Amino acid sequence: MSFEQAWLNYTERTSCEGADRLQNIYADVQDELMRNSVRELQLGLEGMTGRQPVLREISCNGEGNGVHFVYQAGMRKESYHLYEKDGMVTIEASDSNGILYGTFALLRQIRTKDTIAGMDIAKAPDMPLRMLNHWDNMDGSIERGYSGESFFFVENEVVVDDRTVTYARLAASVGINAVVINNVNVKDAATWLITERYLGKVRELAELFAGYGIKLFLSLNYAAPVELGELESADPLDERVKDWWKKRMEIVFGEVPGFGGFLIKADSEGRPGPFTYGRTHADGANMLAEAAAPYGGLIIWRCFVYNCQQDWRDYKTDRARSGYDNFMGLDGTFLDNVILQIKNGPMDFQVREPVHPLFGGLTKTNQMLEVQIAQEYTGQQRHLCYLIPMFQEILKFRTYVKEENDTVSDIVSGKTFGQHNCGIAAVANTGNDENWTGHDMAAANFYGFGRLAFDTKLTAEEIAGEWIAMTYGRDGQVMETLTDLLMRSWPAYEKYTCPLGIGWMVNPNFHYGPSVDGYEYSRWGTYHRADHEGLGVDRSHDGTGYALLYREPNASVYDDRNKCPDELLLFFHHMPYTWKLRSGKTVIQHIYDTHFEGVEMVDEMVERFSKLQGKLPAGPYDRMMERFTHQKEHAREWRDQINAYFWRKSGISDEKEREFY
Amino acid sequence: MSFEQAWLNYTERTSCEGADRLQNIYADVQDELMRNSVRELQLGLEGMTGRQPVLREISCNGEGNGVHFVYQAGMRKESYHLYEKDGMVTIEASDSNGILYGTFALLRQIRTKDTIAGMDIAKAPDMPLRMLNHWDNMDGSIERGYSGESFFFVENEVVVDDRTVTYARLAASVGINAVVINNVNVKDAATWLITERYLGKVRELAELFAGYGIKLFLSLNYAAPVELGELESADPLDERVKDWWKKRMEIVFGEVPGFGGFLIKADSEGRPGPFTYGRTHADGANMLAEAAAPYGGLIIWRCFVYNCQQDWRDYKTDRARSGYDNFMGLDGTFLDNVILQIKNGPMDFQVREPVHPLFGGLTKTNQMLEVQIAQEYTGQQRHLCYLIPMFQEILKFRTYVKEENDTVSDIVSGKTFGQHNCGIAAVANTGNDENWTGHDMAAANFYGFGRLAFDTKLTAEEIAGEWIAMTYGRDGQVMETLTDLLMRSWPAYEKYTCPLGIGWMVNPNFHYGPSVDGYEYSRWGTYHRADHEGLGVDRSHDGTGYALLYREPNASVYDDRNKCPDELLLFFHHMPYTWKLRSGKTVIQHIYDTHFEGVEMVDEMVERFSKLQGKLPAGPYDRMMERFTHQKEHAREWRDQINAYFWRKSGISDEKEREFY
Repeated sequence: MSFEQAWLNYTERTSCEGADRLQNIYADVQDELMRNSVRELQLGLEGMTGRQPVLREISCNGEGNGVHFVYQAGMRKESYHLYEKDGMVTIEASDSNGILYGTFALLRQIRTKDTIAGMDIAKAPDMPLRMLNHWDNMDGSIERGYSGESFFFVENEVVVDDRTVTYARLAASVGINAVVINNVNVKDAATWLITERYLGKVRELAELFAGYGIKLFLSLNYAAPVELGELESADPLDERVKDWWKKRMEIVFGEVPGFGGFLIKADSEGRPGPFTYGRTHADGANMLAEAAAPYGGLIIWRCFVYNCQQDWRDYKTDRARSGYDNFMGLDGTFLDNVILQIKNGPMDFQVREPVHPLFGGLTKTNQMLEVQIAQEYTGQQRHLCYLIPMFQEILKFRTYVKEENDTVSDIVSGKTFGQHNCGIAAVANTGNDENWTGHDMAAANFYGFGRLAFDTKLTAEEIAGEWIAMTYGRDGQVMETLTDLLMRSWPAYEKYTCPLGIGWMVNPNFHYGPSVDGYEYSRWGTYHRADHEGLGVDRSHDGTGYALLYREPNASVYDDRNKCPDELLLFFHHMPYTWKLRSGKTVIQHIYDTHFEGVEMVDEMVERFSKLQGKLPAGPYDRMMERFTHQKEHAREWRDQINAYFWRKSGISDEKEREFY
Repeated sequence: MSFEQAWLNYTERTSCEGADRLQNIYADVQDELMRNSVRELQLGLEGMTGRQPVLREISCNGEGNGVHFVYQAGMRKESYHLYEKDGMVTIEASDSNGILYGTFALLRQIRTKDTIAGMDIAKAPDMPLRMLNHWDNMDGSIERGYSGESFFFVENEVVVDDRTVTYARLAASVGINAVVINNVNVKDAATWLITERYLGKVRELAELFAGYGIKLFLSLNYAAPVELGELESADPLDERVKDWWKKRMEIVFGEVPGFGGFLIKADSEGRPGPFTYGRTHADGANMLAEAAAPYGGLIIWRCFVYNCQQDWRDYKTDRARSGYDNFMGLDGTFLDNVILQIKNGPMDFQVREPVHPLFGGLTKTNQMLEVQIAQEYTGQQRHLCYLIPMFQEILKFRTYVKEENDTVSDIVSGKTFGQHNCGIAAVANTGNDENWTGHDMAAANFYGFGRLAFDTKLTAEEIAGEWIAMTYGRDGQVMETLTDLLMRSWPAYEKYTCPLGIGWMVNPNFHYGPSVDGYEYSRWGTYHRADHEGLGVDRSHDGTGYALLYREPNASVYDDRNKCPDELLLFFHHMPYTWKLRSGKTVIQHIYDTHFEGVEMVDEMVERFSKLQGKLPAGPYDRMMERFTHQKEHAREWRDQINAYFWRKSGISDEKEREFY
């Protein structure tokens, strides 16, 4: 299958003053990272200016007509300083990673700005770990994949080819420095990835990645010693199990130099874990961490642990509490090379959730934020839903764990507690589709995630603008239209799907399209509790008490139906349909209105997009228009089903007397 | 995979007076049917009496210590006369089929009665065609199969082995004389069944079947000429298409002597058909019938044609009308070797539906009744649901198409219009599970369907008794308990699932387990239209007018909410929850009560069944108990979800103040 270059679109001449004078690269090329930096610059400048710069392999601190790669001791890890002076461009860094990021920054400048004159950009990445989690299975399928099949695995083999190289370039260009290539649900052949059967190929991939500053990680099957047929137990306190892992780690880290470590989903949704042996998650994680420590390996342990066999009749058990309840008591007991990976919200990547209360709860544990750019619950890359504004809200959320530097961003950047094993991970949205992400504009989420992780101060609009200019150039109408579409897409999606913080009104399993009761009588702990008088889940002190897991003043705000923000009201409270929101509207009228508004927004967006015909390349335009056409129709389906459901159930008429069914 | 003998259980000594004196068989064995009759009698008598009778191959009308097979001209096709006189048993028939049926009748007598003395049974089958429709795919899967994989197909090959022989014996023993081996949704390899690639194996199977009086049929892909790559059209009025089919029929009937003909699902649920070419179903069916006529082949054409892309917002279109609307206008235009196969109800095998209005509508067209013993919507062979009482109700339904002989049974038996190409078909419930039908007691539906088709006057209790005695012997407690369980199972299932004629409250696709809104906002034309005031579909003259498709007085009864039988009220009318039924209960209280009653019935049934431990063989007992245990729990899930749904929606409390959720 062929593939495009996404935002590494160097094929067009770009008018950026000063760029065409960059005809030499002065560099002391000593490693693959540096070599790739040179290559990228040659490729980019040739594409954008028509002339390939020549590499002058000399250590040069003097003058010269071109780009100078300069090692500068004492700078922060992975940081760069990029500046222009008298027609000469310098990229300073204390490591080759910084040089690579500076190189991509230069190419970005050329592609997205009018000039390089006077540029002076010094940037150290905000997050230590900027990671992608691929949920690719070794049979080639992708769990929650909406962009075709895996390009890492085909028929139970690891693939390393041209596409892998382009993937690494795309990831590195936005600052990704860690990648997990296989699904967190580790089964079948994937359990064998840590064995001789696959390690040769894993090494090949790790070396390729290393050349782009990316550490390779694997998802691990906690029960590997058992499932590989070598032990009868995976008890983390059993010495034989410990020894087995020590030997296994020696093999893996020995075979794969620079290997990053492991991501583990344990005791969750049917996956094995330490609970099987009456042990804690700390027992499990520390056992692995101890074995990986000699090699600098990290153990990234997911906190997505809950009872997925809940009885819907049970109003006491609250899935939202489970992450907190399972891990809070373990705070401070994890080794330093363990990181807890915590989803942004307590449920599962809904279009709107409160921030996970473990952020601000944990104070003595390394933490990573997990978000999902695979649009599992946000339109599956058939609907446009630009997620960067959501991620920004999450990152800016004040936890009040300290008086300052207390946001989620501060915590996972390491600022709050001075940690260095921390960062942010996104469940990836790529596949082997020609355009990588199914919906062409879904690439903005991949691009934006990396950029945001590297520089949390960027705004969603700035990132959108960069991505558009990188991908389609700087035409004013294109820039303005696509930015507008991106920025309106998440609010629109929230409006025509699940307003007021209620989630899960989707078709079971697939998670696509409306089904108000789809998860209402199921075992997944995901209920809206709608009856003829109202809806919402009482998570206040009268209910499950979840609201009280936050630090003050968040707890009091969420706990009080009069103070709780409208957009989370039904997440925290069971409210009558007739309750007046701050907007002055009743809950039911808000439901009706937002569903009509969301559809109107989509109509406007599609109308506006249609004006880009001829302005965008025909291939992407047609693909996008096909998806927008579906989105337009499908948004109506959402609107009509949700409104019909609540109208039929409440018996309350629409004030505006619109047509319901 | 091994398999059991189901009700052909000749392994136990059986105390039946006179049976042990049957030590000879006097027969003039001239064909395979006769040979199989002898074999079966030898097998059965050896098993049940301990002594194998000896075949005396002489034409014998005189005396003798044993069983005499006697050809008697002038008797009706497939009929037999079985009687005992002075210790000698005679089976008279005018064809070998009758001899075979008489043989099975004798074995049944021995297994289920105390004596053969004085028996005198003359029986001609009521239905000309007594057919099973297997929905087996050539990859080995079975559409709506709940008993394992196919035993007709494995990995795209036709299988003929010991299991096929036992299958034919089981089918013949209850009077089945026609079998369609492949799914009506004909795709992929199955399209090629009518080609040289498979005909050799089809012939082998047809010959085996013929030895048991069974004609082999195939489901046909209407678009075969196109999909086999030979023509670009399947237009039934195109001469090239007609010629193609004539040649194809010549090949198929030539290669497979005695081949029965074809079953066709056209223009339904995505299957191709004559509509593609702007032609009628009569055009399509007659084109095939003309080609098959020279060989005595039948074309069985399904009437399950409806719009499966309906908009749920559309209250006018009514799937229930579609069969009638599509076919009624074609009455009298079909050739004589065409049979229309009509499902028992207008929807799709729900636990309760009115009888299909084409029965009594059509007067000049051959008709077959299609029922489903695969329990797609009736518990999928995990719940016990004995369907023979339902089938009896359907068969006894008076259509008023004539003053007498006007029941569905009369019509499809050929009595009403003097037709001979007619009968009854059941979607089969078998697979390669050891016990054939998943739930051991689901075998009673296979057994019962055949027996009922042969002899429509048998009661459901009689059939149950026969099946129990045949399978487990005549122990009083076993007989009484299992009969009671079978007879209560359908009413119980109806109560805890969908009372008052409302259907489709199931999980989409799978059709298992409750989901009240599962099909409410879908494209399938299957709605309950519940709101906070009431539920049901208005099919009266004020609504879709469906009720008026029946002949009087049925039309007036169904059309009038005051006259409509309770059990079909919500099928025909949208009623307020507060409406008083004839029982004096409101609709909502009826919903609540029946759901509790249904669960109580299951509890009693399981309790009663548990007393058979030690009385039934351990294997079947354990298997059944496992399913009953699930049924008990799952019936509660049905009860609680349905009651919660309607309680939350109506806001009306349960008079008995039971616990709702």
